[in-house]
Amino acid sequence: MSLEKTVYIGTFIHCQSLTELDIVDNGAVGVDEQGKIAFVHRDRHATSLEQGWKSAKIVDSLKHGFFFPGFIDTHIHASQYPNAGVFGKSTLLDWLNTYTFPLESSFNALDKAARIYNRVVARTLSHGTTTACYYATVHVPATILLADICHSKGQRAFVGRVCMDRLSPEWYRDESVEAAMDATKKCIEHIENIDPDFHLITPIITPRFAPSCTDECLIAQGRLVQETGLPCQTHISENKAECQLVQEMFPESKSYTEVYDSTGLLTNRTILAHAVHLTPEERALIKLRQAKISHCPASNTALTSGTAKVRTLLNEGLTVGLGTDISGGYTSSLLAEAREAIFVSRHNAMTEGDGAKLSVEEALYLATRGGAKVVGLEDRIGGFEVGKDWDAQMVMLNPVGKDEDLDQSVGLVDVFGGESWSEKVEKWVYTGDDRNTMAVWVKGRLVHDRERVRS
Amino acid sequence: MSLEKTVYIGTFIHCQSLTELDIVDNGAVGVDEQGKIAFVHRDRHATSLEQGWKSAKIVDSLKHGFFFPGFIDTHIHASQYPNAGVFGKSTLLDWLNTYTFPLESSFNALDKAARIYNRVVARTLSHGTTTACYYATVHVPATILLADICHSKGQRAFVGRVCMDRLSPEWYRDESVEAAMDATKKCIEHIENIDPDFHLITPIITPRFAPSCTDECLIAQGRLVQETGLPCQTHISENKAECQLVQEMFPESKSYTEVYDSTGLLTNRTILAHAVHLTPEERALIKLRQAKISHCPASNTALTSGTAKVRTLLNEGLTVGLGTDISGGYTSSLLAEAREAIFVSRHNAMTEGDGAKLSVEEALYLATRGGAKVVGLEDRIGGFEVGKDWDAQMVMLNPVGKDEDLDQSVGLVDVFGGESWSEKVEKWVYTGDDRNTMAVWVKGRLVHDRERVRS
Repeated sequence: MSLEKTVYIGTFIHCQSLTELDIVDNGAVGVDEQGKIAFVHRDRHATSLEQGWKSAKIVDSLKHGFFFPGFIDTHIHASQYPNAGVFGKSTLLDWLNTYTFPLESSFNALDKAARIYNRVVARTLSHGTTTACYYATVHVPATILLADICHSKGQRAFVGRVCMDRLSPEWYRDESVEAAMDATKKCIEHIENIDPDFHLITPIITPRFAPSCTDECLIAQGRLVQETGLPCQTHISENKAECQLVQEMFPESKSYTEVYDSTGLLTNRTILAHAVHLTPEERALIKLRQAKISHCPASNTALTSGTAKVRTLLNEGLTVGLGTDISGGYTSSLLAEAREAIFVSRHNAMTEGDGAKLSVEEALYLATRGGAKVVGLEDRIGGFEVGKDWDAQMVMLNPVGKDEDLDQSVGLVDVFGGESWSEKVEKWVYTGDDRNTMAVWVKGRLVHDRERVRS
Repeated sequence: MSLEKTVYIGTFIHCQSLTELDIVDNGAVGVDEQGKIAFVHRDRHATSLEQGWKSAKIVDSLKHGFFFPGFIDTHIHASQYPNAGVFGKSTLLDWLNTYTFPLESSFNALDKAARIYNRVVARTLSHGTTTACYYATVHVPATILLADICHSKGQRAFVGRVCMDRLSPEWYRDESVEAAMDATKKCIEHIENIDPDFHLITPIITPRFAPSCTDECLIAQGRLVQETGLPCQTHISENKAECQLVQEMFPESKSYTEVYDSTGLLTNRTILAHAVHLTPEERALIKLRQAKISHCPASNTALTSGTAKVRTLLNEGLTVGLGTDISGGYTSSLLAEAREAIFVSRHNAMTEGDGAKLSVEEALYLATRGGAKVVGLEDRIGGFEVGKDWDAQMVMLNPVGKDEDLDQSVGLVDVFGGESWSEKVEKWVYTGDDRNTMAVWVKGRLVHDRERVRS
């Protein structure tokens, strides 16, 4: 699909490093017909020197707006979206039985799956999520449908059929290892059919978590990971009772991480969600295998799982991104999740000292460049550089005039004048929401637009 | 001012006790010309038995809506609103110097004060805050203006001129104890003029916090509290460095709490914000004096102050409400603050055990009935009973249809059907925002209305 050549002009903000934002006040970015960034100018007037861009479309971020890379949600259960915010006082293992399995099992009804998946993709796009790593359910038709919906709405996605052959109720699990592998392969084949080069949609092998899979099932999935070279996603060390359970269920493994490693599931394309209670030895093994970590602070707090030690993970050289973990987490917004990451880091700082604190800049790095590394696409997304895809959002803040009526449609970020761009970004992270995300592009394609949505 | 008699019909939810919601699915509440609740029926058809209500106006919460008591924000610095979300990695004492004093001191410009105060009152009303305990600044004209704005917009408010004669920069403090007391009395007199019986606006004596006031200043304010019987608000035990500072500055006092008690500032109308690091002896003294506590979880996390032990406070019989503490806290929404209270309680539970967890119901209790007790108005607001004022909000959630486009204007709470009212309330607390608050009333007067705002 060929797009209209477009020059984006105005303010561009992205992460230069873990700790620093690069803020360009009056720049220009040219995006070609394939949705790739053809040029980046720190002074928009330099655009006139570019050959063949005179008649390109112009999109302006305007005075109180800026372009920011799209968010990358490295861990989200699309099927659990209807339960967002509903978990009472439960913790992981009882939460699964009380809330999660009954909901997920209902995805054998395809009309229900359609309603929920259409909503969760539209919703996450409206939050500026340009890439999502989705867990679906065990069901093949519904998982295929989720891939189709992402493809048609234009969201970059990793779509995984959940594989699980024990622990859960009999009415919600794979019937055998063979049946599980057949089902997973069917989902992979479908995605190969609709998007042969995985330009937008990539299948991802998804063993729910170690306790949900027999040894044979883990081994079979590990073999598939090794044979196909496909990415893999699962959970690790979220909750202490879960860690204890893994120890009991896998007495021959030295650690939770080793369960995955010994079954071929720990590769440089593996995304491990949570990583709250890892031992130093486990972290060293994860680093050795170059596996990635999805930090899910809202979920970890909501389910009282614990606080992941993100500063330690980063200091040790591990790769970390953010995940909303719907519906362990309550929010489908990665902007809200960035705030939760900062807040969890404050709780770590209360016991470990100030070094544990994540800054706004660091949280935004995790939400963009960190996530890009977690999904193995750091050469294509996460920032504004020539050759990368235009996966971006246009953010608009709200200047407060004199004697002006409140306009709730423009959101909660009130700008009074005099704020620096850094302060405006802080305000966005803390008080912003989907109302500030005016438009979203993936690979240059406009996939969400508030003006249209409101009309 | 006489109002139109109105019968509210539909779903009513309020807190029956700390742990239980009372949910009436098809009820009716009659509100008289003075804004008082004249009758409450659990079956709306019982309204026909009421004499003289046949021609009353009808307001229906509709199928996915419900009436809920207005929120009571027991601690908010109106003047700091432009800094909401801006605090970097600072903690209390450097935050005051870097962010707070420079902003507050600028309120000598009345046009600036007008722009900010108009916005903060409109904004908090839009979040369903029907009562707010405001800190203004040291300036008399701006403080008077805040009282006028609350009065004219119809928000129930406690408005305090901040009193402080040391610690802060010379360019932002009271020049002497006499000047401070004169200034505070002028603000009290103004409120007595515009609202003689304090029906809506009440002056509140507001020593910033112990380190900001000389002994003489604290004593003079304590005398004023004792003479007038007016309420008082201040900060206590927010941050460890602050506690240490108080110990050094008041070497003769046994504790931070005793500084207030020995100067006459600790009464049953005193609101103490934060209370993070109180000793058991201090809690006992606060209980003895029947002073109240404003819990400000978002602020305590943002500034890494610590986690207030709310379960302990409640178990010991102390009275607790919630405060947004703009701009130590980032949000002006008490709904968001309720979620933060739940989350901070989860962090307490990680070290203290499950007993520390606050439920959604408990957080909502703190936001309504708890707050009502904190401000000493538990006989007039906080729930739906005959004789109370109609301080209420109408909340609307968003049913997700089939193949429906996303409508961001209705907010983020997606209801898929089958949710119980309890689950809908959970979803509201976790994923709701100002878009769900369709209308707000104080003393029966409509003070915010989304339909009007959007038109």
